[in-house]
Amino acid sequence: MAPAQQPLSRNEGPVGIVGLGLIGGSIGLDLRRQGRQVCGLVHRSTTAERALQRGLVDRVSTDPAVLQDCALVLLALPLERLLDPDPDLVAAIPAAAVVTDVGSVKQPVLERWQPLHPRFVASHPMAGTAEAGVEAGLAGLFADRPWVVTPTAETDPEALAQVQGLAVSLGARWLSCEAAAHDRAVALISHLPVLVSAALLQSADRGALAALPQQGLPALVRALASSGFADTTRVGGGNPALGTQMARTNQGALLQALRLYQQQLALLEQQVQHGQWSDLEAALGECQQLRPGFVKPT
Amino acid sequence: MAPAQQPLSRNEGPVGIVGLGLIGGSIGLDLRRQGRQVCGLVHRSTTAERALQRGLVDRVSTDPAVLQDCALVLLALPLERLLDPDPDLVAAIPAAAVVTDVGSVKQPVLERWQPLHPRFVASHPMAGTAEAGVEAGLAGLFADRPWVVTPTAETDPEALAQVQGLAVSLGARWLSCEAAAHDRAVALISHLPVLVSAALLQSADRGALAALPQQGLPALVRALASSGFADTTRVGGGNPALGTQMARTNQGALLQALRLYQQQLALLEQQVQHGQWSDLEAALGECQQLRPGFVKPT
Repeated sequence: MAPAQQPLSRNEGPVGIVGLGLIGGSIGLDLRRQGRQVCGLVHRSTTAERALQRGLVDRVSTDPAVLQDCALVLLALPLERLLDPDPDLVAAIPAAAVVTDVGSVKQPVLERWQPLHPRFVASHPMAGTAEAGVEAGLAGLFADRPWVVTPTAETDPEALAQVQGLAVSLGARWLSCEAAAHDRAVALISHLPVLVSAALLQSADRGALAALPQQGLPALVRALASSGFADTTRVGGGNPALGTQMARTNQGALLQALRLYQQQLALLEQQVQHGQWSDLEAALGECQQLRPGFVKPT
Repeated sequence: MAPAQQPLSRNEGPVGIVGLGLIGGSIGLDLRRQGRQVCGLVHRSTTAERALQRGLVDRVSTDPAVLQDCALVLLALPLERLLDPDPDLVAAIPAAAVVTDVGSVKQPVLERWQPLHPRFVASHPMAGTAEAGVEAGLAGLFADRPWVVTPTAETDPEALAQVQGLAVSLGARWLSCEAAAHDRAVALISHLPVLVSAALLQSADRGALAALPQQGLPALVRALASSGFADTTRVGGGNPALGTQMARTNQGALLQALRLYQQQLALLEQQVQHGQWSDLEAALGECQQLRPGFVKPT
């Protein structure tokens, strides 16, 4: 059940949102419905116009000065731009404002932003659709979704409480952990699956081509692929730029996850190779038991 | 679009169906709607009663003699029982009948049944739901689904034509290939994904447990798993007995597929390890291109 959204108190000044794609736009919609004033900063004037038309913001500009009165600034930028921020943006953020982000990897963001702003709080609201851009924002996107925050010893507790107030006001589930733990967790459950799934697509393609004696195999493999193959390959067939960005920004944790995965797969391979069928059945039985712990029944 | 079902001619005598689970029961329902007489052979008398109540068959028995007038006998048994058939069943199949099966692996079935019956045709109707047993059969299950047949030089062409007539009458798409090609194809697109997906569940579990400094990681990993993880692990969290049976009966092709998969994954791992981001993006771009060839848009 989605927790009820609780409006933020209205005397906290405007919220600035940098970037009005899926995440930034959705937060803008929800905050405005609470009566909170929202100022948007975007890259292009066409985006600014459309954001106003869609009601994502009260005011919007391509000039960072739009952030000058903001009490809270949310950086809803793609990870590359978050890790290599425009100096004009950094300079325009009021020193007294609470600053937070929405990046899907937390250690590099913390390393970059903690020295840049005294009231920075690293967060990762985990919600998504296949859409992107100024048309993508949706009201209620964060209801009952995890909003992970990764504070450090240097994090300002009052700033952290304000970010928590924002997350709770959107109906999100608040989770706090170390940045390293977050990055390991998303490597295992989000970044590793992309590579595991991509290698399966490549194998089905290469395996079919390698079977020269049976020239019809490429077409046959494609004709026989069913819903199980479709599900297992969905994330591997996704946006290549996004998959590469995840790997690049979470390289260490992803490599660790990949090596663990290769070990697990090698154990299953040995069971198949040596015909250890009762061991294989026990391993698959364990997997059947494990899955409901990760995946809520739908 | 599903091809229209075309009734079989009615003067061909009854069809015998051995086993009235999802596949056998569904075929019984469709054939009876065409006006064809269907005789069922089952293991338990309670199943026999329920099959009659559900209208899966005209006559049903636990005695193989029920097959005595059948012109076509369809073996809709689990793979283990198909590969180690009851001698009373083999003896009861009329010598003149056309015999076919529904097994998901074809080489071992051919090796077992070709010597047992002169008019055996190996086939694999590819349709399924999560259900099993006498309650599972559904009308129209095979409409527009592949029905793969794997004839050999010894296969009786007239028997093959009769099986084709049956498949086409159910609205299935008829595909013919060598048994070895079939088994390689299903290893790549159906059996390999089970192990790939199972190892991902094990890695998420083990990876979270291994992170002792961050004791909350097991709960965190579970809290953060989203729809991508759910999709990628669906087949790995499935029926362990079925997964083991697939591996056991298609061991050679599955091992070959697994090794190819490990090579592909190692290439992706190297790109991550050496920070070859443009190569990784190109590989993921290829996967994005490959997937629609396997997976029809829904």
